[in-house]
Amino acid sequence: MTTDCPVPYAEHDRVQLGHGAGGRLTAELLDALVLPALAPGTPPGPLEDAALLPDTPELVLSTDGFVVSPLFYPGGDIGSLAVHGTVNDLAMRGAVPLALAVALIAEEGLETSVLRAVLESLGKAAEAARVPVITGDTKVVGRGAADQVFLTTTGVGRRLPGLCPTSAGARPGDAVLLSGPLGLHGTAVLSTREGLGFEADIASDSRPLHTLVRRLAELGPDVHALRDPTRGGLAAALNEIARDSRVTVEVAEDVLPVPGPVAAACELLGLDPLHVANEGCLVAFVAPGSAERALTALRSRPEGADAVRIGEVTAATPDPAPEGAVTLRTAIGATRVLDMPLGELLPRIC
Amino acid sequence: MTTDCPVPYAEHDRVQLGHGAGGRLTAELLDALVLPALAPGTPPGPLEDAALLPDTPELVLSTDGFVVSPLFYPGGDIGSLAVHGTVNDLAMRGAVPLALAVALIAEEGLETSVLRAVLESLGKAAEAARVPVITGDTKVVGRGAADQVFLTTTGVGRRLPGLCPTSAGARPGDAVLLSGPLGLHGTAVLSTREGLGFEADIASDSRPLHTLVRRLAELGPDVHALRDPTRGGLAAALNEIARDSRVTVEVAEDVLPVPGPVAAACELLGLDPLHVANEGCLVAFVAPGSAERALTALRSRPEGADAVRIGEVTAATPDPAPEGAVTLRTAIGATRVLDMPLGELLPRIC
Repeated sequence: MTTDCPVPYAEHDRVQLGHGAGGRLTAELLDALVLPALAPGTPPGPLEDAALLPDTPELVLSTDGFVVSPLFYPGGDIGSLAVHGTVNDLAMRGAVPLALAVALIAEEGLETSVLRAVLESLGKAAEAARVPVITGDTKVVGRGAADQVFLTTTGVGRRLPGLCPTSAGARPGDAVLLSGPLGLHGTAVLSTREGLGFEADIASDSRPLHTLVRRLAELGPDVHALRDPTRGGLAAALNEIARDSRVTVEVAEDVLPVPGPVAAACELLGLDPLHVANEGCLVAFVAPGSAERALTALRSRPEGADAVRIGEVTAATPDPAPEGAVTLRTAIGATRVLDMPLGELLPRIC
Repeated sequence: MTTDCPVPYAEHDRVQLGHGAGGRLTAELLDALVLPALAPGTPPGPLEDAALLPDTPELVLSTDGFVVSPLFYPGGDIGSLAVHGTVNDLAMRGAVPLALAVALIAEEGLETSVLRAVLESLGKAAEAARVPVITGDTKVVGRGAADQVFLTTTGVGRRLPGLCPTSAGARPGDAVLLSGPLGLHGTAVLSTREGLGFEADIASDSRPLHTLVRRLAELGPDVHALRDPTRGGLAAALNEIARDSRVTVEVAEDVLPVPGPVAAACELLGLDPLHVANEGCLVAFVAPGSAERALTALRSRPEGADAVRIGEVTAATPDPAPEGAVTLRTAIGATRVLDMPLGELLPRIC
């Protein structure tokens, strides 16, 4: 064990739930511990959803662990989520999926019928996305050493010609587009887990987005940045792009599509719907002159039928954008900061 | 949940520890549940350590979950193991590693110093193997929902020109070579976990094997099959190749390199050293005329210094080799079947 423990972790600090929630605590853990350990000496760069393969930059690689609880919820389950999450991370780099690898960690005592249902759902979701599962791994740990089953899905994707979105690509003047309603996945999972009764009205939006991204390919380099607002919700996605692109972003609150049942569930749970995970929509930063074409392209697919323009990039910042770089313009014309969520509120949502 | 539950799983069957141990139970789970769910309608084929990427067969993909307990043991830890295991799976398809992806699942309350030590070890092992970690994911689950930390490492590798080993490639007459001593990894982990006191004499053999495989590249297509005998040990590796290649294999017991402390630990634990996991040696099936050259090539590297010829492929079988296809010739000339281990004896060894 090392003794040279830089801030912000003191010797007996411990991992918190929020370190995995996709918000500020996750970013701190990555910056202070994970990245220095895995790539010592490398200056921090943009954190993309998927990485380009060395020597083969037309191929991208993405990995994601899935620990959602419960395993099944309206609109999906851990199996389909494991496909959609990884397919979408590839898509956010402008890539269509080429192959998946699946590693599962099961708890001793899990009913084989549950495992079968999860894996059949995974297989069907992969088939629907037309991506083969070409390799995998199975581990079993003793009772109490894991909770039912965890999946890790890794995808290799091939980038669509001409499309090169990056979280560092947003520019002043860019239009910010959102492809669908907010907050469905997180509230569906939470409501099911807690038995809140919203399960009848809310279903996860979990679905693959690579076909939607394919429609954006006609815009080529005018698509500057793409992000699927999963953990940490829209707030995290916008703040990450603002940070990596060194820009400020303003979003109009009254156009944000928050379905009524999501708003009601969030009210009850004390959550901001803009902090809640989505698994079936994307945020696109596009050149202002291409905004209308991009909206038309998104709306040409069912999963983008409700696409709207939610805001724009207001300015460049000299350094990585500070906290406060993303603001929300309210209906009465006031603005408030849309901060990166701290992140401890929504454990095991994906 | 599905109701069409084919043998061998009845409705209320449950996952057992042995389903993850790399032996017969693992094979049954894969054949009866995992593979039909993930790739319905696909006839069972050889189970390789890594898969060729569609449309890009010079690239291979492999994924592996790591749940070893304890996290640290003589000769290694879960971090270095996560690199070596995946690098070696790529190497068994004749590939050198191009990039790694790492997904971690941490338990709330894990000391950040432990996480740092694990990830620093992973980073150092990746650097030593000259493979970058290009992407990753971090999830945290509540206390008691995981045991400290699990890692899943996925690797992309590039196949060495001319080398195309496959577990279906062994042929009658092939020489069977083993690159190093048996049983060190599994006994080192078990001894540490159980506090048996062998930890002073046994250290894991965990190390990357791609450089060793590179030395075999000069033999080109005469290298028919490669396997690193991890979970299930040498017995599982030989039985898997026998099954996939439809051959019978005979191995000479008295040339198998089982270090004294490993034999003593296995005696105490009631284990067969041929069932114990290794993480730093490989089995090679090579054309008989190239056996000596292959041994020389293996011995030219420190990690292959103790390479020996342990047996040969005795015959082809009309169908996938039945149980009993791998036999052990004892010092007095008798033979006994070297069966696939059932698999429940060694949980969480990797």
